[in-house]
Order: sequence, then structure tokens, then C-alpha cells
Amino acid sequence: MTELWLIGIGTGHPGHLTLEGRQAIRDARLILVPQKGAGKEDLADLRLAMAREAGATARIVRFAMPVRDPALPYQDRVARWHDEIAEAWQAALAGTEVDGPVALLVWGDPGLYDSTLRIAERLRPAPRLRVIPGITALQALTAAHAIPFNTVNGPVTVTTGRRLRDHGWPEGAETVVVMLDGACSFDTLDRPDLQIWWGAYLGMAEQILEAGPLAEAGPRIKEARAAARARHGWIMDTYLLRAP
Amino acid sequence: MTELWLIGIGTGHPGHLTLEGRQAIRDARLILVPQKGAGKEDLADLRLAMAREAGATARIVRFAMPVRDPALPYQDRVARWHDEIAEAWQAALAGTEVDGPVALLVWGDPGLYDSTLRIAERLRPAPRLRVIPGITALQALTAAHAIPFNTVNGPVTVTTGRRLRDHGWPEGAETVVVMLDGACSFDTLDRPDLQIWWGAYLGMAEQILEAGPLAEAGPRIKEARAAARARHGWIMDTYLLRAP
Repeated sequence: MTELWLIGIGTGHPGHLTLEGRQAIRDARLILVPQKGAGKEDLADLRLAMAREAGATARIVRFAMPVRDPALPYQDRVARWHDEIAEAWQAALAGTEVDGPVALLVWGDPGLYDSTLRIAERLRPAPRLRVIPGITALQALTAAHAIPFNTVNGPVTVTTGRRLRDHGWPEGAETVVVMLDGACSFDTLDRPDLQIWWGAYLGMAEQILEAGPLAEAGPRIKEARAAARARHGWIMDTYLLRAP
Repeated sequence: MTELWLIGIGTGHPGHLTLEGRQAIRDARLILVPQKGAGKEDLADLRLAMAREAGATARIVRFAMPVRDPALPYQDRVARWHDEIAEAWQAALAGTEVDGPVALLVWGDPGLYDSTLRIAERLRPAPRLRVIPGITALQALTAAHAIPFNTVNGPVTVTTGRRLRDHGWPEGAETVVVMLDGACSFDTLDRPDLQIWWGAYLGMAEQILEAGPLAEAGPRIKEARAAARARHGWIMDTYLLRAP
């Protein structure tokens, strides 16, 4: 593998694919697709359907997605996991003739709360990297609610559910967007003055939206999230909080 | 006008257009295009070229972009300007038969440091709004440099040049992305430990990138920015700063 393309494909809406992304899918010679195990085939299937619709002629090579070791501390666990994924890519490609660019289809954008760039940096010899931007959950969320990301000249903090739980509302923040939150961490904030705009399966047919004062919308979101997760077996969601 | 579509078109790369955005451009019946005055035709022309390439059959209606009143305080100046733009849209449409969706092509994404949603809220009677997400300068920047937006589980503050000048480095921030900076405001920071990744005309043929320790790359960026602005008559740029 001398050339690796990371192609942002958006949040699941086939129309999120950019013209540049579609052309890259067509030009790739091999597409690496993760297999995450039982109950998560939906996502691998969605990726493959998108590649087919885009007109991919690449060979599809699957790799088994390693599982994070819960016994390790967080940063070590993530670093070890990235090592193992890089090894899984190389193992999947071993013995396969690669006669052109290898592509990975990345949910959202390859730069935003995604590990693919960090995994790619571990490859030896280092391939030439090309990153193709994609629609992120941030834009899919604000577009679905038809709200601005920021107030006039206002700052926005983009953070994770883990940080919100551990550190609370960021000092002096006006707008906070929360990614990677598997635990409704807004629930740990004692801020009844906040407004929330929440979305799950953004851009997909299954999309669910909720919004309102956090005190009222929070419980509705927890209930809707649990029910949707049980129904589909997985969930991807994100939300924006705004202080008055 | 009963239906208004705000279509994010990315940062100038024709390939940033999404399949959803392209379809919306085709389905729109009228496209409103701003005219910003001498020396800025490039941008209006780029929008029109993109609409044509996407297969637009809509009527093109131009409106003269009002100018901000520098005598007013910042927030008033912006609010007044938004009022005037809403009036300019309505004046441009007065007497025009509108037999379907009206579209505006928005650089980047309609939610991110863009006024179009706030202007649209001023329209009476209120049209039905549809927002189509687009590739933002944030993604175009990180993709061009092939760097992640955030560190592992790390937060990112998205802010403006004006805020960086007025408030300095955000308390406790790790990564800061600066939008709408016409004045190289990184120059006001006394932080020789920062790294900067800068890009102008992101995604376009004119794209320029610079990166490195702020103390070394800062002066290079100021020089490159001034020269490019003089050459093209306009510049759009953004940058990411990371603390160690």
C-alpha cells in the first residue's frame, strides 16, 4: 500500500457524499471495510451500499475490528486499540496484491473525533495520505434543526461526553457541542437554563430530533435514546447545548 | 416565497458539493445571488459556475449586498446589516413570480459562522426553511493538512479573530480554530509554544498552506496572506492552533 485515502462519507444520508468523495470511491482500487461483530452489520452494510451506489469497482477487503481492553486506563486503551487496528489493516492486506489507492470510508469527516488518521500514522512503510472531507454530525445536527452552530461572533466548544461528565460545563462557554456521548452526560449538568438540540441517526431514515429547555427535553431524550437503541441495536447521536 | 433552501456548497472546491446539495440546486426554481461590488466578482462568479455545473435550471436573481455601517457598535452593526440584507432579498424578489423553492448558495455550511439563517428568520411571512449541510473551512483545513481536528478525547474551541484579539487564548484550551480573522490575530498571542496550521482559498486552485511552530510560521503566514490578498483582491483563510 503506497497510497491511502480516507474518505469522509457523512453521517449516513447517501446525499451527504460529496462529488469529490464519490470520485475517490470510484478511483480507489481496494476498499477496507471493518467488521464490528454481531448486531453491528447495519453500519458495515451501509458503507458497502454507499460504495456500490457511488460506482465503486474496487476490491472489498474486510478486517475484523479489534475490541478495546476495558482493563487499561483510557488513553492507554485507545493507543493500544489504534495499534491493533493498524495491525488488522496490514494483516488483511497481507498477500493481497494492491495495484492502486487503498480507501477507507469514514463516517462523518476523517478529522473530527475519528481515529483513522491516528491509525494511519502507525503504518510502516508510511503510505501517502489523502484526506477527503465529509459532512460531520455537527453540520447534520444544526441543519436538521435549522439552527446556527454559533451565536453572532460567539465561540463554540466541541467536546466529548466523557469530558462533560469529568469536567462539567466548560468555563465561560456559550455553546457546547457534545460528541461520542454514550451516557446522556448532559444529565450530570446542573444547568436548568440551558437549551438542548439533540439528534440521532442524523440524515438517515431513522433520524430522531428533540429540542427544548434541558430540564424538559432531557428526560424525553433519555427515553427516546434508550428505546431507539434497543430497537436498532446501535445508536449514533450528538447534541448542542446553548447557555442564555 | 414559501420555501427557502440554504445550500452549503463547501469552500470553493467544486467537489465539495454534496449529492444532496447538487440535487437541491437542480430542484430550486430561483437562486438568489449576492453582488458584493467591484473586485469581489470572483466569488459571485464561482457560485454561478457551480450552479451551472450542477445542472441548475433556476432563474438567477441578483441582489446588491448592503455594506455594514462602521459607525455602529459591533452587535448593532451586524443586526442592522442582517435587517438590510433581508430587505434586499425581498426587494429583489418583489414583482418576480416565484413558482417553487428559492435557494441561496452558502459558502461552507449555512450553520457555521454564516449569517444566512439569521437573515432568513427576519422574513415575513416566514418561509419554510430547509438547510443542506456543506463542507466547512474546518474540514477543508484539517483535510488539506491531513491532521485531526481534536486530540484523543480532547476539546476544541471554535472562535473568531475578533474574540481572539479581545479575549486572548481561551482559558484551558488545547485546540483553537479561528474563523473570520481578517487581521492575523494569532499575532496578538504571546504563546511561542503553540503550533499553527493555516490555509487560504481552501480547496481552490489558489490554495496556500503553512504550518509549524507559531513563532516561525506566523511571520511567513502574515507575508503570504498579504501577498495573496493583494494578488487576488480578496482572501478567505482559517487556522488551527494547538497547545502542547
